Amino acid sequence: MTRCVALSGGVGGAKLALGLARTLPPEELLIVANVGDDFEHLGLRICPDLDTLTYVLAGLDDTERGWGRAGETWEFMSALAALGGETWFNLGDKDLALHVERTRRLAGDQTLSQATAAVTRRLGIRPRIVPASDDPVRTIVETGDGELQFQHYFVRERCRPPVTGFRYEGAEAARVHPDVLAALSSPGLGAIVICPSNPYVSIDPILAIPALRAAIEGCTAPVIAVSPIVGGKALKGPTAKIMGELGQAPSAEAVARHYGRLLDGFVVDEADDSALPAIRALGMAARAAPAVMRTEADKIALARAVLDFAASLA
Amino acid sequence: MTRCVALSGGVGGAKLALGLARTLPPEELLIVANVGDDFEHLGLRICPDLDTLTYVLAGLDDTERGWGRAGETWEFMSALAALGGETWFNLGDKDLALHVERTRRLAGDQTLSQATAAVTRRLGIRPRIVPASDDPVRTIVETGDGELQFQHYFVRERCRPPVTGFRYEGAEAARVHPDVLAALSSPGLGAIVICPSNPYVSIDPILAIPALRAAIEGCTAPVIAVSPIVGGKALKGPTAKIMGELGQAPSAEAVARHYGRLLDGFVVDEADDSALPAIRALGMAARAAPAVMRTEADKIALARAVLDFAASLA
Repeated sequence: MTRCVALSGGVGGAKLALGLARTLPPEELLIVANVGDDFEHLGLRICPDLDTLTYVLAGLDDTERGWGRAGETWEFMSALAALGGETWFNLGDKDLALHVERTRRLAGDQTLSQATAAVTRRLGIRPRIVPASDDPVRTIVETGDGELQFQHYFVRERCRPPVTGFRYEGAEAARVHPDVLAALSSPGLGAIVICPSNPYVSIDPILAIPALRAAIEGCTAPVIAVSPIVGGKALKGPTAKIMGELGQAPSAEAVARHYGRLLDGFVVDEADDSALPAIRALGMAARAAPAVMRTEADKIALARAVLDFAASLA
Repeated sequence: MTRCVALSGGVGGAKLALGLARTLPPEELLIVANVGDDFEHLGLRICPDLDTLTYVLAGLDDTERGWGRAGETWEFMSALAALGGETWFNLGDKDLALHVERTRRLAGDQTLSQATAAVTRRLGIRPRIVPASDDPVRTIVETGDGELQFQHYFVRERCRPPVTGFRYEGAEAARVHPDVLAALSSPGLGAIVICPSNPYVSIDPILAIPALRAAIEGCTAPVIAVSPIVGGKALKGPTAKIMGELGQAPSAEAVARHYGRLLDGFVVDEADDSALPAIRALGMAARAAPAVMRTEADKIALARAVLDFAASLA
């Protein structure tokens, strides 16, 4: 029975997802993965956040580089470059296997959630990882230079174009896996955790799906978000840059305000405990905890702090 | 202006194709590649004979193993196996780049011959390599256990099922690249060379295309085949096994008889010079030459011998 539903993007979110996976029995955790970053590249369906969650939870991730697989090699990319192929998106030799296998399953009769279940099971991952939708939801980045697909913005253009907004193509019509809806309406659910991922590009594409947002809003379990901003900076990625371009101070408080009334509680890093009164003034509970996760012990400690916080609000 | 059109399959044929490429100015050689082995695997278009010709002519082939690329690595395959993927067909990390790049080009608006031209040009190959057709022609192996796609027979089943026959699906309707037809009808053409490839699975799928066969039959240049059988054995692959199963003695003479009146001349290895009278009795010229190509010098010497033979018949 699911006791915790976690919404997660890639790197930062996956760290807390791993902490939760090491803390809860596998059947009690369901991780909902962002699919807004997904794209088709070289004929392959690439799902960066699902991939990162898969590698992190299987213990296959490269913790030094922060993305992709440990011990990765790049023979494919070198050979592709020699053929004049498209090389702006790095695909490691091992990583490629996941994209090829997923694409093969999708080209058959499997949904993305079925393909994900098959691959994660094979890699020994026990908690469920479910895509926010099996239907396509695509984050489109609105910039002064026009609209960009997310990976074009993020990887090809290295987040250079100033952002004016986002839209989540397909979200309105996207269906949600029945198991996610069942978990969110289960009386045994104790917490919905919004992992410390980029609010605009990792969490909002999940929340933009009407059935999912409505289920979270209607849920009796407390909804707790963990700030991806610590000391005015993003731990990883362009969150702070994007917030500045959208006219937001890059602060934990601004993230709490962004999620607003969806939240029952907000967790900031201890470095930001001075922001607690302002966050509480937004009408939610707030707590400080060590939110910079370097070691597995850090991840487990933060997961416990978040679950304790949720229990205190139940 | 094309002076020599060579019909080739993979490994054995590619050796003579390389010899021809080292002998003739690039604009004088056009290589027509078998596409009967081509298949779709893991969402990729794989063209084993085009790939082998490409690697051999670019000097990228693994001469020890006899197929694929030199210095190949297998990280992708290991990772795919760990995901429970289909691993019966070996795809090296570097090799994969060619399949992915070709598949990407075909998914756009390119034909197989355009994709082949782009890739071979990029790899510095100067003679033209043209697929026998841009339309699908697929060798189907008829066995006691039913029909098999060629790669399923050749790789997955390792040529175990006894062969009762072949058919070349799509050949009847397949179109031929206009440049191939133009070369075959050019008054300057001096030779059509059937490389020492498997007659049933490498050359017959080319000859099964009516427009191509008619152009060769109607051509004024001599048609010369080189025996893939030396001393009653195939130098590589299942040619001798297949001939036996089809009730043919695996001999150079039987190959000459198989091609029959299409040929003006037939080249056997010096080890088979005793077969020359019987081959001449079939109504064609015949000559012995060292046909076992180990070194590049062997390949060039055989290419010269074949071209001299053609010149003598013109």
